Amino acid sequence: MSVESIVQSTQIVLASRPDGAPTTDNFRLEAVNLPELTDGEVLIRIIYLSLDPYMRGRMSSAESYADPVEIGEVMVGGTVGQVINSRHQGFESGDYVLASAGWQSHAVVDGAHLRKLDPAVAPLSTSLGVLGMPGFTAYSGLLKIGQPQEGETVVVAAATGPVGSAVGQIAKRKGARAVGIAGGPEKCAYLRDELGFDAAVDHKAPDFVEQLRTAVPDGIDVYFENVGGEVAEAVLPLLNQYARVPVCGLIAHYNDATAPEGPDRLPGFLSRVLVKSLTIRGFIVSEFESMYGDFLRDVSGWIREGRFAYREDFVDGIENAPTAFIGLLEGKNFGKMLVRVAEES
Amino acid sequence: MSVESIVQSTQIVLASRPDGAPTTDNFRLEAVNLPELTDGEVLIRIIYLSLDPYMRGRMSSAESYADPVEIGEVMVGGTVGQVINSRHQGFESGDYVLASAGWQSHAVVDGAHLRKLDPAVAPLSTSLGVLGMPGFTAYSGLLKIGQPQEGETVVVAAATGPVGSAVGQIAKRKGARAVGIAGGPEKCAYLRDELGFDAAVDHKAPDFVEQLRTAVPDGIDVYFENVGGEVAEAVLPLLNQYARVPVCGLIAHYNDATAPEGPDRLPGFLSRVLVKSLTIRGFIVSEFESMYGDFLRDVSGWIREGRFAYREDFVDGIENAPTAFIGLLEGKNFGKMLVRVAEES
Repeated sequence: MSVESIVQSTQIVLASRPDGAPTTDNFRLEAVNLPELTDGEVLIRIIYLSLDPYMRGRMSSAESYADPVEIGEVMVGGTVGQVINSRHQGFESGDYVLASAGWQSHAVVDGAHLRKLDPAVAPLSTSLGVLGMPGFTAYSGLLKIGQPQEGETVVVAAATGPVGSAVGQIAKRKGARAVGIAGGPEKCAYLRDELGFDAAVDHKAPDFVEQLRTAVPDGIDVYFENVGGEVAEAVLPLLNQYARVPVCGLIAHYNDATAPEGPDRLPGFLSRVLVKSLTIRGFIVSEFESMYGDFLRDVSGWIREGRFAYREDFVDGIENAPTAFIGLLEGKNFGKMLVRVAEES
Repeated sequence: MSVESIVQSTQIVLASRPDGAPTTDNFRLEAVNLPELTDGEVLIRIIYLSLDPYMRGRMSSAESYADPVEIGEVMVGGTVGQVINSRHQGFESGDYVLASAGWQSHAVVDGAHLRKLDPAVAPLSTSLGVLGMPGFTAYSGLLKIGQPQEGETVVVAAATGPVGSAVGQIAKRKGARAVGIAGGPEKCAYLRDELGFDAAVDHKAPDFVEQLRTAVPDGIDVYFENVGGEVAEAVLPLLNQYARVPVCGLIAHYNDATAPEGPDRLPGFLSRVLVKSLTIRGFIVSEFESMYGDFLRDVSGWIREGRFAYREDFVDGIENAPTAFIGLLEGKNFGKMLVRVAEES
């Protein structure tokens, strides 16, 4: 073993819990010396950090499906990295890996939790988006819960994002009609022209509700719920009998500190569930792990054949992660939001 | 053909649509001459009329899964009758039949919509309760959507009613723990002592929320939703991951004319759906018709073996149907609510 020089990691830690929408004050940049490797561990430099809406939940202490980030801890997140040094027999210097290393430049990680990536198969960054957690969320939630049938209508919001864009394209492959909701004419044009959605509706337009109704002349059979808020409110009356609503996110509500003012829409919502025999089903992607092989095979195949599009939105430098994340919660990104922490090579 | 004398039917018709809770002013008693039979028709005298919460929905013009009763029309409802005269080859005078003849003393009905009843198999009234639509609602919704597993906890409200009492007893048969919610100590004692529920909770008790929590030490895996309101509010935080909520009724909200005052609980509800991977599924019993044979075989078998209890709450005279129905919506009945319109023989 050679003597190792001490490696420093530039980190974004949680400085305080947000009250409503996060601000840059809730984050703090730190530099720490990483410990030396012990057996089974791997030192990596981070290349890409994924920014995803679920991270807002981890900033709060409210009960959720995962423990919150503690004050002073590094923000959690999926990353692509490259091995600098390894004391795990499965990895050697130069290997590219998928890791949950969080918002930092370097990390010491347990080799047992890494997955090796082959840059020849697909661009490295896709393992955080279309071929990663967001793509798998779309694939598993749509097919297992949404179960779109030929000729049915599937609606998804945040449709240019990594989950929504995959939902629409997979729905098309199942013979369904795909209708996307996005903010602004540029994103809507992208849905129709680049992703092949049958219709796109701008939720910022003053006549959004009317536009949506026109876009779904036969009603809605599957509403893939990843936003909540006013979009969900407009969708609800259009759901057909036996419609399915996979719920994977509620970005419109992540900043709610308390229940919004009334009227109380819950009784009306439940009446709709009853009258229309609706299925509302929350899920987290980890539930469907047994489908992961099918997902990788299908979607990577479609990408290689040029029949599946995706879009990435990069910001450079770990120090810019907080601002990019705040923008993500406001819908400012256009495509999968990634921080380029370092160059690939 | 003999000359038929004209038969008069005493009917309860919808006089006006209720604004909030129905009053007796919304109903009107009428006497009408029934038409003579044409081919395929059957004249029946009604013996039992079933009163069920869904009828409140039919009194309103809001969109629902069935058309509303029009002003001046006879109120809809399931009935047990006896054939007086028949021009349908499947029925003859004296036969007992199940019919959707509504709130009246006599009716001319299409023989194609009748089902013959054998009073030797089970008491005639049970075809409107434990062996009828309410029992089948419990059986199909619990088994198809609730899917209780051995050792899981099933909670149902209005638990002494015809749906709730069947839900609890079927849950027990599947090896689950059954917890019933009912109003008052007498009903709670009946749940424990007569129906074999593992625990009973009084929703009128001041410490109801605390009582419920104590009654479900391992949380709730299936909540059979037939009431909504404060009971649902207390249940929601206790639902386990992957819990299932079949929604067959919302009696607490049937009289809501507008959305209740805030705060708006819908975002919090959906967050819970997401965080706990809940399944919320509305249904109407007609969806599961293919299970009807299994239902009749199982439940009538359990009743014959003395292993399945049910309770009926009779009121005498069609003219008393409105008051009994109003009481039903307030939870005043104790057991399946039936109007005895005439003696069996």
